[in-house]
Amino acid sequence: MSSSFGNLFRISTWGESHGGGVGVVIDGCPPNIELNEADIQVDLDRRKPGQSEIVTPRDEADQCEILSGVFEGKTLGTPIAILVRNKDARPEAYSEMKDKFRPSHADYTYQAKYGIRNWQGGGRASARETIGRVAAATVAKKILRARFAPDLEIIAWVKSVSDIVADVDPDTVDFDTVESNIVRTGDLQAADKMIELIKIMRGEGNSVGGVVECVIRQVPPGLGEPVFDKLEADLGKAMLSLPACKGFEVGSGFAGCLMTGREHNDPYYMEDGRVRTRSNRSGGIQGGISNGENIIFRLAFKPTATIMSAQQTVSSDHQDTELTGRGRHDPCVLPRAVPMVEAMAALVLCDHALRQSAQNG
Amino acid sequence: MSSSFGNLFRISTWGESHGGGVGVVIDGCPPNIELNEADIQVDLDRRKPGQSEIVTPRDEADQCEILSGVFEGKTLGTPIAILVRNKDARPEAYSEMKDKFRPSHADYTYQAKYGIRNWQGGGRASARETIGRVAAATVAKKILRARFAPDLEIIAWVKSVSDIVADVDPDTVDFDTVESNIVRTGDLQAADKMIELIKIMRGEGNSVGGVVECVIRQVPPGLGEPVFDKLEADLGKAMLSLPACKGFEVGSGFAGCLMTGREHNDPYYMEDGRVRTRSNRSGGIQGGISNGENIIFRLAFKPTATIMSAQQTVSSDHQDTELTGRGRHDPCVLPRAVPMVEAMAALVLCDHALRQSAQNG
Amino acid sequence: MSSSFGNLFRISTWGESHGGGVGVVIDGCPPNIELNEADIQVDLDRRKPGQSEIVTPRDEADQCEILSGVFEGKTLGTPIAILVRNKDARPEAYSEMKDKFRPSHADYTYQAKYGIRNWQGGGRASARETIGRVAAATVAKKILRARFAPDLEIIAWVKSVSDIVADVDPDTVDFDTVESNIVRTGDLQAADKMIELIKIMRGEGNSVGGVVECVIRQVPPGLGEPVFDKLEADLGKAMLSLPACKGFEVGSGFAGCLMTGREHNDPYYMEDGRVRTRSNRSGGIQGGISNGENIIFRLAFKPTATIMSAQQTVSSDHQDTELTGRGRHDPCVLPRAVPMVEAMAALVLCDHALRQSAQNG
Amino acid sequence: MSSSFGNLFRISTWGESHGGGVGVVIDGCPPNIELNEADIQVDLDRRKPGQSEIVTPRDEADQCEILSGVFEGKTLGTPIAILVRNKDARPEAYSEMKDKFRPSHADYTYQAKYGIRNWQGGGRASARETIGRVAAATVAKKILRARFAPDLEIIAWVKSVSDIVADVDPDTVDFDTVESNIVRTGDLQAADKMIELIKIMRGEGNSVGGVVECVIRQVPPGLGEPVFDKLEADLGKAMLSLPACKGFEVGSGFAGCLMTGREHNDPYYMEDGRVRTRSNRSGGIQGGISNGENIIFRLAFKPTATIMSAQQTVSSDHQDTELTGRGRHDPCVLPRAVPMVEAMAALVLCDHALRQSAQNG
Repeated sequence: MSSSFGNLFRISTWGESHGGGVGVVIDGCPPNIELNEADIQVDLDRRKPGQSEIVTPRDEADQCEILSGVFEGKTLGTPIAILVRNKDARPEAYSEMKDKFRPSHADYTYQAKYGIRNWQGGGRASARETIGRVAAATVAKKILRARFAPDLEIIAWVKSVSDIVADVDPDTVDFDTVESNIVRTGDLQAADKMIELIKIMRGEGNSVGGVVECVIRQVPPGLGEPVFDKLEADLGKAMLSLPACKGFEVGSGFAGCLMTGREHNDPYYMEDGRVRTRSNRSGGIQGGISNGENIIFRLAFKPTATIMSAQQTVSSDHQDTELTGRGRHDPCVLPRAVPMVEAMAALVLCDHALRQSAQNG
Repeated sequence: MSSSFGNLFRISTWGESHGGGVGVVIDGCPPNIELNEADIQVDLDRRKPGQSEIVTPRDEADQCEILSGVFEGKTLGTPIAILVRNKDARPEAYSEMKDKFRPSHADYTYQAKYGIRNWQGGGRASARETIGRVAAATVAKKILRARFAPDLEIIAWVKSVSDIVADVDPDTVDFDTVESNIVRTGDLQAADKMIELIKIMRGEGNSVGGVVECVIRQVPPGLGEPVFDKLEADLGKAMLSLPACKGFEVGSGFAGCLMTGREHNDPYYMEDGRVRTRSNRSGGIQGGISNGENIIFRLAFKPTATIMSAQQTVSSDHQDTELTGRGRHDPCVLPRAVPMVEAMAALVLCDHALRQSAQNG
Repeated sequence: MSSSFGNLFRISTWGESHGGGVGVVIDGCPPNIELNEADIQVDLDRRKPGQSEIVTPRDEADQCEILSGVFEGKTLGTPIAILVRNKDARPEAYSEMKDKFRPSHADYTYQAKYGIRNWQGGGRASARETIGRVAAATVAKKILRARFAPDLEIIAWVKSVSDIVADVDPDTVDFDTVESNIVRTGDLQAADKMIELIKIMRGEGNSVGGVVECVIRQVPPGLGEPVFDKLEADLGKAMLSLPACKGFEVGSGFAGCLMTGREHNDPYYMEDGRVRTRSNRSGGIQGGISNGENIIFRLAFKPTATIMSAQQTVSSDHQDTELTGRGRHDPCVLPRAVPMVEAMAALVLCDHALRQSAQNG
Repeated sequence: MSSSFGNLFRISTWGESHGGGVGVVIDGCPPNIELNEADIQVDLDRRKPGQSEIVTPRDEADQCEILSGVFEGKTLGTPIAILVRNKDARPEAYSEMKDKFRPSHADYTYQAKYGIRNWQGGGRASARETIGRVAAATVAKKILRARFAPDLEIIAWVKSVSDIVADVDPDTVDFDTVESNIVRTGDLQAADKMIELIKIMRGEGNSVGGVVECVIRQVPPGLGEPVFDKLEADLGKAMLSLPACKGFEVGSGFAGCLMTGREHNDPYYMEDGRVRTRSNRSGGIQGGISNGENIIFRLAFKPTATIMSAQQTVSSDHQDTELTGRGRHDPCVLPRAVPMVEAMAALVLCDHALRQSAQNG
């Protein structure tokens, strides 16, 4: 169960960073949606390693193969299995990790949980696992646009790297601007500073974290559920399940705690026959359900745990020891996290749209 | 599905704020756990309205009745149904809400989703729904202590109200201190200031938000799952499903984004035969799985939406109009949110402990 | 989980035969369906004890109370909780069962599983548990007729009691005929013989089994899923979950094993623009999906385990011993099983109709 | 969801008969279970086409590749993905089916449900889908023997083909005898007659059905759940989800309807400190929970729908027409159904064993 996500649009990912490959099975996809491998590849290419000088140089084309569920270019309604082979695995780089736990990685906790772990690379905890999520999200976006939200836009960007904060307006930011720079932000001046900082960090064998912000525009009202499966709760879970994510906030978020109710409430008004709010501190969600305004949220990503300097740690046989990072890693996960965030948002929305369709017709 | 939570320890809550009552069905509870209504009532009393001068004066004893699943003082392993009747419902206070949407409440979104809503009180979006969660958590804590973590401590407190920040050490804070003041914080000087501010807000018909922090101590390593059901993801979802919660962060959280990897990583060392970390920026969770250190997280709660002043809004028939808040409400949700946060933490942990037991014996 | 059924129309039943009561929570019900307690009571009255001279004389009105999810006579889309109190419990009749396992009952297996059991009556294994199913099915039928199958008919009847076989045509049998006789069959001559046999059995302190047949008419094609959730698989599970059910067959069933493919296949033809089959050995389901023909299936019910004569058994402390049945029981479960079978059929169909609606619009 | 099975040991199958291949993802597998492709291949070879002169001649080696979840010969606790490529697909044999629905196949119902179908072969309704189930069951059996039932035996056999009934004692039948004959029954004299009949049917372009019986020996008491997830209900669903299965009965089954309670009840007695029953009309399950006796059940399989003679049918554009079967098919599905039945039994038991471990540990 731990590798499945969603109720009606359910994805099951599988695979380790070093092994036969990684992939996903999508169950519950509506039929007659046009789909081919090239559609998916566009999204995978935004996520793949080696795409720029500020991400990991691991050389993976991440080419996907659709194994089932599609016939003559259209979905059948049956499970869609997608496979990406691991090509550039270099387990020899990890031989020291066989016996030592990397600090702030999942090595120790996997060992504590399972009594065994694939020590070649990150195993299941590797960001390669997100390939299946991104591939599934290509399908989710197609469903959303075909059946529920024709003009849907899901755009994420790097809001900050360390203390460099981008000036981006969620209501107007566009996808092309974000994609125009390798750090994936909507503020080109901040982009230069962020790229420079990441390069410095990489040069020092160090790493850096930051914040990703995401907006979902043109969402119909009514998506989300009362109580446990509130839209913000499912978005939060989705985002916090991404590697290195340490925090999530929607709308006014933590900053909203400093406001009074009188300042914070979003007044309603009518505009062109639609119920609108004058401000959007709710972040597009009220009582767990979308209200038609832009859905806005932010995620905190910690600095990459793999750094190229000696660190204190312990060995598998419980001795104090030291370990120096090796392998190919991102000095900053944020540029590649952007498509993952968009992917998780699409998966959550698609599942809720199908749920809404089932219950409320 | 939207009203169920958990995989193996699964709770299903039901009920509206004005109607026959509220309750919960707990499925998957292990047998032979001692349980009676008085055990549950202790936790419900911390959540109930009217408990102090800074919370809503609605007069509800919130007395629970166990309807099934317990025999001669012990759980049977079969579903435990718990019922709390609504007593002090005053639907007449809500008559204006029949036709007008309260700003930043769930009125409009429920109407948009379902085409119908119980306009008497908050309906399903009322915090009364959390009675079932708190009652179920009493059972969850008993299971955790009986089978998985005998010395488990789950303690939440108000970390801030508006800009008043409490100075509380998660490693040492104790339950009795938190319970000794009506705002439920671990810093008695801050408590006085918080209480004063809340009273001022109530006097002005306004409201205020803040942050709740929570620590879970004496958790065994190995709880949580890779990928989607990471422990922080399930905790995040649990917390974001609470009314008025707008943000969640674990360990270093958003502040961790300002650190480099070298500063942020938690070095391992051995202590008394146990693997420990010297710092705890991970917040007790690595790769989605508990590492045995204290689990620490924080939640943002927005200011209560109901305020006693005129606000712009729209009517059910889509006309611009005005509405002034009525009814009995908390000027600040945080004191009563504290037991809800602890409850959700217990539910998440219990479910993951049972899952760990099933897979990893 | 074991007490929940359905994916989108999900019911969770709770309660023991002796205790506070029994009930159900229905999650996922569409909004704006007219519903009140009288609607449900009609179905509960067909299931209740004491309704005729051939069923158990336990005196229960089985009056239901809707606790949530309905407002001003319409469903809200939120969970519907329904409660029926136990009134005529007589635990003293069961004192001997405290220490002895009744043969072919669930006493021993519950004890083996849980290490504890409610020995007052059947506990969770009592047919009283089905009250929640029948109540939920009232709602399911309303949804099916309102949204998916306006002319839907679900009719079950007693096909045989011991070797007395009723001559009933599933294509034409009507509800009123079945309800016109206390054994609930569609063949009035067989009814007399069945009633006589059941009375003889009751007089001898013995019991008898039989077969229930069920037809579902006016089902749209397309309900059901490939692979695991085939419509016949979900119907089979639903029926085999009823107390005392030992077998299930659909369409030609076990008798179809004696035919060749040439004899067994159902030829297609067009009629009034609809795809029809000339025979119906498929029982209205092909490849797990309804084809629009009548769905027909049969269930085997064993003779009631409680009999009024001395039987060999063992005690809780594992000594050979003897036990003579006491308490109030049905000499034949079939007349009261008929509404339970219809209820389970409605629950399965409603869930699949909502699933079909979600995926295939 | 429709392609997933199980709660804690959850398998998700995917794939069509003509396409990239078929496979399965297994989630929830305990770690440190020895597993390699050769283990799985043993079971797949019993299921594969072309294994004898009485089954379909389609030439598929059905060689499996484990893509994830196994490291150095042991399970990791993470999802196990298994892939089998389709090799001998001959879509040209199906060109006529593009426009005509095969009687008693899933062609029409898939089209009615999805508005699209893969007409090359059986698509998702093909028995090739069961490859994933059989592969997953290899893992399930290993878990059961390693953790819950060291001496577990699951043996199925052909009980009858048309009116030829094998004389087999479920308490003593052995696996080697069943595997010693190509029809897979435990009565060698009946085997010869069955084989002869199947050859005659194949020669006539006709097909034949029959009954498979299965015994599970050395099951611990306590597996199964009250109410909906009764062990017989989950076994029934599992079996009715197999292609061509039309009926399921456990223990005394339909024949038990002819007995009185006095005849049918299974008296308890003590033997070597174990609670036993003198007869086993319950089929090893009471109240939905295993009692430690042999679990015995039977399944009805209809005659194969594909026959080599002209049949009435309708076309995709709703015209009456005729169709003559082509392609390579089994004249009788039963010999290859035997390993599928054992596989489904193993999947159900493993899931319930893990559930029992979680709750009652």
